[in-house]
Amino acid sequence: MRVAVLAGGVGAARFLRGLIDVVDPGEVTAIGNVGDDLEILGLSVSPDLDSVLYALAGRSDEERGWGRADETWNALAAVSELGGADWFRLGDRDLGLHLVRTEALRRGEPLSTITARLASAFGIRVTLVPATDDPLRTLVRTPSGTFTFQEWFVARGHRDPVDGVDFAGADTAQPAPGVRDALERADVIVVAPSNPFVSIGPILAVPGIRKALERRRAPAVAVSPLIGGRAVKGPAAGMMARLAGGTTPAHLARCYEGLIDALVIDEADVDDAADLGVRTIVTRTLMDGPEGRTRVAGAALEGAGALR
Amino acid sequence: MRVAVLAGGVGAARFLRGLIDVVDPGEVTAIGNVGDDLEILGLSVSPDLDSVLYALAGRSDEERGWGRADETWNALAAVSELGGADWFRLGDRDLGLHLVRTEALRRGEPLSTITARLASAFGIRVTLVPATDDPLRTLVRTPSGTFTFQEWFVARGHRDPVDGVDFAGADTAQPAPGVRDALERADVIVVAPSNPFVSIGPILAVPGIRKALERRRAPAVAVSPLIGGRAVKGPAAGMMARLAGGTTPAHLARCYEGLIDALVIDEADVDDAADLGVRTIVTRTLMDGPEGRTRVAGAALEGAGALR
Repeated sequence: MRVAVLAGGVGAARFLRGLIDVVDPGEVTAIGNVGDDLEILGLSVSPDLDSVLYALAGRSDEERGWGRADETWNALAAVSELGGADWFRLGDRDLGLHLVRTEALRRGEPLSTITARLASAFGIRVTLVPATDDPLRTLVRTPSGTFTFQEWFVARGHRDPVDGVDFAGADTAQPAPGVRDALERADVIVVAPSNPFVSIGPILAVPGIRKALERRRAPAVAVSPLIGGRAVKGPAAGMMARLAGGTTPAHLARCYEGLIDALVIDEADVDDAADLGVRTIVTRTLMDGPEGRTRVAGAALEGAGALR
Repeated sequence: MRVAVLAGGVGAARFLRGLIDVVDPGEVTAIGNVGDDLEILGLSVSPDLDSVLYALAGRSDEERGWGRADETWNALAAVSELGGADWFRLGDRDLGLHLVRTEALRRGEPLSTITARLASAFGIRVTLVPATDDPLRTLVRTPSGTFTFQEWFVARGHRDPVDGVDFAGADTAQPAPGVRDALERADVIVVAPSNPFVSIGPILAVPGIRKALERRRAPAVAVSPLIGGRAVKGPAAGMMARLAGGTTPAHLARCYEGLIDALVIDEADVDDAADLGVRTIVTRTLMDGPEGRTRVAGAALEGAGALR
C-alpha cells in the first residue's frame, strides 16, 4: 500500500514513526513543509524537514519535543558571547546538518536532492521530499506587523494574534520532483496532525500540489492536531479560533474542504463532530509513545481504506 | 612602550600572553597571519588569528595545544555522519566564532573590522589585526603537487617534503588598516617564535609590510621557534633544513635578513650561534607555562631595548 503524507513538523514526525510500523517505509512518501525555513547565521535551516529526518532516524529528543537527542549548545554559546544572532536555538549536532545542507545549496544542488541524501545517510527508507525546491516562505500577519514564521514563532514567542497567513513565492512554486507522482500513485493520502495554517497551509499553497489533491483518485484522510479543541503543542488552537472561527472537527474539516474524504478525531471531540461533510474516524489521537503512534496511523489507514 | 608583533599561530599566541605580563596590552599590536585561512563547509576559518584570540582570551586548550578549551565535537560528528567534509577539526565552540565571522564577511565587513570586534567581545585589550584584508593564501609546493597550507598540513599530515612556498595574492595585497601605522609607531618590533616560512612568511609577503620593516626606525627582534635545532611543535625544522639549508640560529637569521636587529635563541643553540650578523640574546625559550612565557617576552624586549 502506497501512502503519501502531507507533513508539518513534530506532530507529523510522530505520525510517520507510527505509520512505518504498519506499512512498509519504502512505500511511504512524506511531502514536507518548507514555509518555515529560514536563513540564520548564514545557514539554511529547514526545521520541519529536520524534525521528520530526526524522528525517522530515531535521533529526535523526545523529552524536549524538538531537535536532536544528546544535543549540546556550545556553538550557540560562542555565537552569543561574540554578539551573533542567538535567538534561534541551533544545537551543535543540528548545526552539523545545516552546514552540510547549506554548502550543498550553495553549490546549486536542489533542496529535494539534498534532503534525499541526508535521509539516506541516516538510513531512512521513507521518501522525504520538500513540497517545493523553489523559495516559499510563510509570512504571518499580526496587529504588530508581518513577520516570517520563525520571527513570529520563535523570536516573538508566537504571542501576537494572527490576522492571516501568506505564502511568499507560492504562486510560482513548482512541486519538487516526485511530489506530484507520489500523490497520483498513492493508495492513501494522509494529511498529518499538523497546524493547518502554518504547517500544511504552505504545502497546499503550491498550486500543483493543491491541484493534485483536488483531482485525487485515492482517498485522503486528515488527522486532527486538536484534542478537546486544544492543540497538543503549538499555536494551532488559537489560530483556528481566530482564522477558522472555532476549534471543532467541523472547523478543521473546512480548512481542508474539497481536499479530504475523512477526518480522524479524538474521542474528546466526538460531541462536536456533527456536519463534517466527510467521514469521521474516532480514536485516541495522543501520540505519547509507540503504541499511541501506531494506533493513530492505523486509524488513518483504516478510515481511508474503508472508502476504497 | 609600544610593541608591534608579527604573529603566527600557537607559538605567537603563547609569546603574546607572556608579553602582556610585561607591557600594557593596550600598547601591543599583533599582526596576524592569514595565509593559512581556509574555506571549509562554507565557513571562513582563520586558524592563526583564532589561536591568538583564544590564547589572549584565556580560552585556549593548553593540553591539546590548539583550539578552544572545554571543546566538544558534536557538529563535526554530524557532518561526518552525513558525508560532509570532516578532515579539518572544527570544534563546536570554535564553530560559533566561524559562523559569526563568515556571516560578517558575507555582509561585506573587512576581516580586520571583524577581528577587532571579536577581540573586543572576548575582552582582549591587545590590538589584533590581520596582515591584510585582501585574499592571500599560502601554497605549499611538494613533489606530490602544490597544496593550500591546510591541505598540506592537516589533510595530508605535513608528510610531503616542501620544495617551496608561494603566497597567492600577496603581490597586490595591501596591509590591513593600522598595520603600517603600528610598525611605524612601534618602539619595538618583535617577530614571534613562529615558522618563518608558513607563519611569518605570508605576513612578510605583503609588500607594504616588508617595506615598513625594511625602513623601520625601531629595533626589531625575532624569537627563534627552534630549540636545539628542533621545533617545539610543527614542521619548522624540516622546512628550514630543506629550504634554508639548516636549523642553526644563523640559518634562521638569514630568513629575516635585513628585517631584524637581534635574535632570541635558546641556551641549547648557543654553540651554533656564530656569525649571525645580528645581536644574540640567549635564554630558555620553551614557553611551557606562565613563567616561561614571561621570560621569553622579557628577553625579547630587553634585547631590543639594548639596541635603542
